[in-house]
Amino acid sequence: MTYYFSKKLTNISFNQTLEKVATVLKTKGFGILTEIDVQDIMKKKLDRDIKPYKILGACNPSFAYQALQTENKIGTMLPCNVIVQELEDGSVEVASVDPKASMQAVENDALIKIAGEVQQQLQAAINEL
Amino acid sequence: MTYYFSKKLTNISFNQTLEKVATVLKTKGFGILTEIDVQDIMKKKLDRDIKPYKILGACNPSFAYQALQTENKIGTMLPCNVIVQELEDGSVEVASVDPKASMQAVENDALIKIAGEVQQQLQAAINEL
Repeated sequence: MTYYFSKKLTNISFNQTLEKVATVLKTKGFGILTEIDVQDIMKKKLDRDIKPYKILGACNPSFAYQALQTENKIGTMLPCNVIVQELEDGSVEVASVDPKASMQAVENDALIKIAGEVQQQLQAAINEL
Repeated sequence: MTYYFSKKLTNISFNQTLEKVATVLKTKGFGILTEIDVQDIMKKKLDRDIKPYKILGACNPSFAYQALQTENKIGTMLPCNVIVQELEDGSVEVASVDPKASMQAVENDALIKIAGEVQQQLQAAINEL
């Protein structure tokens, strides 16, 4: 089972990709709650050099509310992450978590149904990039 | 399969619990990179009232670096979340994601080994609360 949906973009910068991702996610009802600069953390904490890599925490409040009502510890798996990373060839890869994959250990049919709806929206967003 | 480790604390406030969680995680090498105030988001975005609920994004840079080296899209499942929520009876529940549960769809033995080490540290942190 794959655990993500991804797309490789060319002829676009890393920062332009971040803007594009935010715009497309917004059309699906997802706001970006958190942004982690992994490259910066690896440099500061470990003095390791990696390519630009950011983890965006994307949340659709309505789906999140439904999920928390049915499974009150599902916050351990929220928000849904979308990563943006620069590859060796200069292209930029965007990948969204597949919530049905990350939540497969959760034995709650109502929650899995909601995860399926979120999955569809995230997959559609990645396809639209 | 359970997907989290949890502990219910009594005779401690929500904010004191947040401080305690940060202190204990630090002893295990985890910093808190993100903090999402779910109660605040639900009020502002949906006008829904829920009990205090925060999602903390906990990261051990060394483990994260190893994980990314072996599986470059694992950022879709990082950082490891620890939630703190106030319950109806006034107690405060802390729960950490079990990374071996959330990452079970990832077919990468090296990654699963790292997830197992992180799992042990997070479980130990919850036990120490």
